[in-house]
Amino acid sequence: MGYAIVPLERLTEQLERLPGIGRKSAARLAFHLLYMPEEQARAFTQAIVDARENIHECPTCCNLTDAAQCPVCEDPRRDRTVICVVEDPQDVLAIERTREYRGLYHVLHGTISPMDGRGPEALRVKELLHRLEDESVTEVIMATNPTVEGDYTAMYLSRLLKPLNIKVTRLAYGIPVGGDLEYADEVTLSRSLEGRSEL
Amino acid sequence: MGYAIVPLERLTEQLERLPGIGRKSAARLAFHLLYMPEEQARAFTQAIVDARENIHECPTCCNLTDAAQCPVCEDPRRDRTVICVVEDPQDVLAIERTREYRGLYHVLHGTISPMDGRGPEALRVKELLHRLEDESVTEVIMATNPTVEGDYTAMYLSRLLKPLNIKVTRLAYGIPVGGDLEYADEVTLSRSLEGRSEL
Repeated sequence: MGYAIVPLERLTEQLERLPGIGRKSAARLAFHLLYMPEEQARAFTQAIVDARENIHECPTCCNLTDAAQCPVCEDPRRDRTVICVVEDPQDVLAIERTREYRGLYHVLHGTISPMDGRGPEALRVKELLHRLEDESVTEVIMATNPTVEGDYTAMYLSRLLKPLNIKVTRLAYGIPVGGDLEYADEVTLSRSLEGRSEL
Repeated sequence: MGYAIVPLERLTEQLERLPGIGRKSAARLAFHLLYMPEEQARAFTQAIVDARENIHECPTCCNLTDAAQCPVCEDPRRDRTVICVVEDPQDVLAIERTREYRGLYHVLHGTISPMDGRGPEALRVKELLHRLEDESVTEVIMATNPTVEGDYTAMYLSRLLKPLNIKVTRLAYGIPVGGDLEYADEVTLSRSLEGRSEL
């Protein structure tokens, strides 16, 4: 078509690069952004700029924060003897939603993936070891994702922590609550059998 | 939860306002925009600003363009005796994709909707009448959407154009090509019967 409106095409292309946005959604979003009231459009772009400028990693746990320390690290009510190691900041939010966990976190910002040439130096491993020099930590919970890379990362870290005499645990594998046995994959189901507990 | 990262929350809220973006997608997009390389983030926000600054309505047909005149109005090969009236710029793109239509367009930028208190003065009706003062136009095709508002708008305009002695036509209603009769709704099917043609 020879009739493309270049700045609109360019905006659509930018939107199409976002995860989960196809060509049609991108076009719809482009028109939406175009027709937005000026004030709203400014708030939108400003929110992107603000988030990028003000959010950084907590110097202790490497979670994202806009403060000097993240609120979890700063909260005096949190149990400082346990650290839960996760891949991403999103995982912290997921665990916080359970309202069950009262310890601290450590965010790795990814996984070790030899296949992709991503070694431990790409993660916040050094920062974790540094925290463990403080003798008050008695347990590290590995809460990486139940994927090949997540498991590999958890194994790597647990071996690294063994000599420090800290208890290293892992989240339980099993069938999801409310799920149907029939639909559980074999690996999950066999892990669920292995990890069975007495009633 | 007392642990929200305010600038990230604000960005998520902005993204959630976009059409078709739910809470979970918004959160995922927010992290994506946060982790984007600086250059890419700048290109993204700049595309929004550029589109909003450079795109305006064609002074003739009211379609969107970043040029003095839109490319359709400017194209000497287009048939200047026919004007196809559509609701939105997206509709122009849809019709252009058929590669069937060689006439001009007129973009109303909406529909008349007495229910929402939106009268003809909110649309580019004046601009359409102004164009029809030029005697070269012999046919106006109403290509508003097959909705209550679209139909109402087409009816309103056709009555307005009657005294000008210009042929006013409407897009055919009927079953979609490749569709299944079984799944066609009754209104479409009865319109399709009404509009039947000889084989």
